[in-house]
Amino acid sequence: MYPWYRSMANSGSIAGRLGDATLAQTQGGITAPAGFKTAGVHCGIKASPSALDLAVLATDAPASAAALFTTNLAKAAPVLVSREHLNQSHGIARAVVVNSGCANACTGAQGLDHARRMAEETAGAVGCPPEQVLVASTGVIGVALKIDRVVTGIRAAAAAMTRDGGSDAARAIMTTDPFPKECAVIVQTPRGAFSIGGMAKGSGMIEPNMATMLGFLTTDAQVSPAVLRRALQESARDTFNAITVDGESSTNDTLFALASGSSGVVIDETTYPSLLEGFLAVSRELALGIVRGGEGATKLIAVTVSDATNVDAARQVARTIANSLLVKTAVHGADPNWGRIVAASGRAGVAFDVESATVHVGGILMFEKGLPHDDAAPQVAEHMKGHEVRIDVSLGSGGGASATIWTCDLSAEYVRINGEYRT
Amino acid sequence: MYPWYRSMANSGSIAGRLGDATLAQTQGGITAPAGFKTAGVHCGIKASPSALDLAVLATDAPASAAALFTTNLAKAAPVLVSREHLNQSHGIARAVVVNSGCANACTGAQGLDHARRMAEETAGAVGCPPEQVLVASTGVIGVALKIDRVVTGIRAAAAAMTRDGGSDAARAIMTTDPFPKECAVIVQTPRGAFSIGGMAKGSGMIEPNMATMLGFLTTDAQVSPAVLRRALQESARDTFNAITVDGESSTNDTLFALASGSSGVVIDETTYPSLLEGFLAVSRELALGIVRGGEGATKLIAVTVSDATNVDAARQVARTIANSLLVKTAVHGADPNWGRIVAASGRAGVAFDVESATVHVGGILMFEKGLPHDDAAPQVAEHMKGHEVRIDVSLGSGGGASATIWTCDLSAEYVRINGEYRT
Repeated sequence: MYPWYRSMANSGSIAGRLGDATLAQTQGGITAPAGFKTAGVHCGIKASPSALDLAVLATDAPASAAALFTTNLAKAAPVLVSREHLNQSHGIARAVVVNSGCANACTGAQGLDHARRMAEETAGAVGCPPEQVLVASTGVIGVALKIDRVVTGIRAAAAAMTRDGGSDAARAIMTTDPFPKECAVIVQTPRGAFSIGGMAKGSGMIEPNMATMLGFLTTDAQVSPAVLRRALQESARDTFNAITVDGESSTNDTLFALASGSSGVVIDETTYPSLLEGFLAVSRELALGIVRGGEGATKLIAVTVSDATNVDAARQVARTIANSLLVKTAVHGADPNWGRIVAASGRAGVAFDVESATVHVGGILMFEKGLPHDDAAPQVAEHMKGHEVRIDVSLGSGGGASATIWTCDLSAEYVRINGEYRT
Repeated sequence: MYPWYRSMANSGSIAGRLGDATLAQTQGGITAPAGFKTAGVHCGIKASPSALDLAVLATDAPASAAALFTTNLAKAAPVLVSREHLNQSHGIARAVVVNSGCANACTGAQGLDHARRMAEETAGAVGCPPEQVLVASTGVIGVALKIDRVVTGIRAAAAAMTRDGGSDAARAIMTTDPFPKECAVIVQTPRGAFSIGGMAKGSGMIEPNMATMLGFLTTDAQVSPAVLRRALQESARDTFNAITVDGESSTNDTLFALASGSSGVVIDETTYPSLLEGFLAVSRELALGIVRGGEGATKLIAVTVSDATNVDAARQVARTIANSLLVKTAVHGADPNWGRIVAASGRAGVAFDVESATVHVGGILMFEKGLPHDDAAPQVAEHMKGHEVRIDVSLGSGGGASATIWTCDLSAEYVRINGEYRT
């Protein structure tokens, strides 16, 4: 429905129809839906005085909330506290507080105190119980938060929140991201219109199952916490959980969704598909933005594996190709090296017959019946010089299942960024 | 017994005692044991006239033979033919023929014909049935062998074989390897002395389970094909299968062992441990040489995971750390970023309690009870500026199992090599 190559620059270009409902992209991000306000400020975690490093997002009234967290065993303090708060509040939230520049991970008891303090200060500023505040952090691991600066920042941000603060918030959550990522859509249904907004940050340590990724979705649809969680899980599977930059997953990965209900449009079995499509559209834009903004990335790569016996098998092969250093460096060099794609497929742990498999790059057949089509190489090299590279592998299993994983190329710049990040 | 950091430069430094037997490093490689001769020649697969690209190794009489092959589903023609020949000959071989510069992989029926032709020509030159010849190839995938040049090269190499040809052979199997890798030891037993020699090539697409790696072990011990195979499997597990450069495994990975019996020392249950120790010593030297010579590598990294509930769990965590791009780039930049080590451990799919885990780098405690020891950072950074970096993670599971995986750092040079390899 929305092509894989839809770019972040194509604002206003998302459009679709689903039964009686239509969907269209609109301006803005997390405050596009009614009932939300936000601000991003500089509180002093990042060195540069012009660098925003803290955001507070609040709802006008208690909102439904849902979250997905990192599957890493080493979970950061904000992840532990947010999970605890969502349980205590039974999926109700009034605010989210986020800082960048410091992950508050591997920080022990003091880290938990700091994350709780962030929630308490935010709760005090917006007037709600602390368990109705969700917390997220991103940045360097193992360094204590400068909590006094954070507290000052929370008060400043809470005082500054507006309906127009979305862009500042999207900047305040960035670490090595080269650009902010936000997106919003309006969904028209026979019962009325509702909006969905979102923002996200990357941009290394990105792998399916919540990498060092923070994502925030907002909607003014009226939806229970349970249904909100279902929509979040179902939309993340093929968007935020279908991207990889470097195969790493982090201590802090978090995806939050908040529903204010301000539009008055009730989500039930009839309207759920519209909500899901909207979540998918916004999440796909944000997730692809994370990949495009991956550390050192110069190209977006869409790896689609088809004709697998089941979706998990397709996903596993696609992920192995997408994480292959040799494939990623070949794409970086615009080298039509189908051999590396075949070799990565063959070591993915999924049984298939190489003689029945095909490889297309940029829609051009490169490998079939165990043999290359090297005549196509010059044409494929041209495709690979662009910023969007498409790799399609059919396993020829007769199963018909398929999956897409998005990744980026691997450049010397990635090495530079990550060899020098901390020092 | 042999420290992990034993360098390729330390020739003559391997020494050990095992019951009544002693082991000492000696000069040379695959022709150090009696009963073998070899030559490496330039036949024209590689462009440069000075680049050796073909080697033939022959035994004076039929020898016991064993092999391990790539687990990749996409198996190259020489792998298929060598496996077939070993089955047909019941583990007897007279010669091995190897070329570099062309992998003869994904080359279809013609590729199989070419691999068989290589065996036939070699068989003709040494005077044995074709099924007593093993074949290996390494280089670019999906390109047809220049079989006429290869045939000419086989004849030239077979005519030039000597007891001193080991160094040329070790050069003739190189692709992007920065240096040749060969090693030999003498094992003294109460029954007499026997020798073990070996050579190997890397140097990208390296991951446990036979990466783009060719390895060759020779011995003049008298050993049956079945026992030779057992020694090869047991020694490879902790050497050739415990290294990774980039997590890739290839279509052509092969490890061969040949036993001439010329020393007259019979391997039985009493002498088997000496053979195994010798195989381990030679294989470890060669395997570490592959990692040191990994594409773009500037440092050897030994990742040891201990106190796991079982060896597989230890190996899995060690491998995840060893393949982590963020760990590899941090080591490249001499950045004591224990957080990336903890994060990689936590996503390895092995359950453990992060609070009970410890991380040492260069023997210095960096992480304990969920918290960093950042005071140690400057000292650790000094360790990391060297060419050998040691990472030790204890999972604190009370299980006591441990495993070591060796890898190298990830540099911009790796990206350069692999973005430009084919074009």
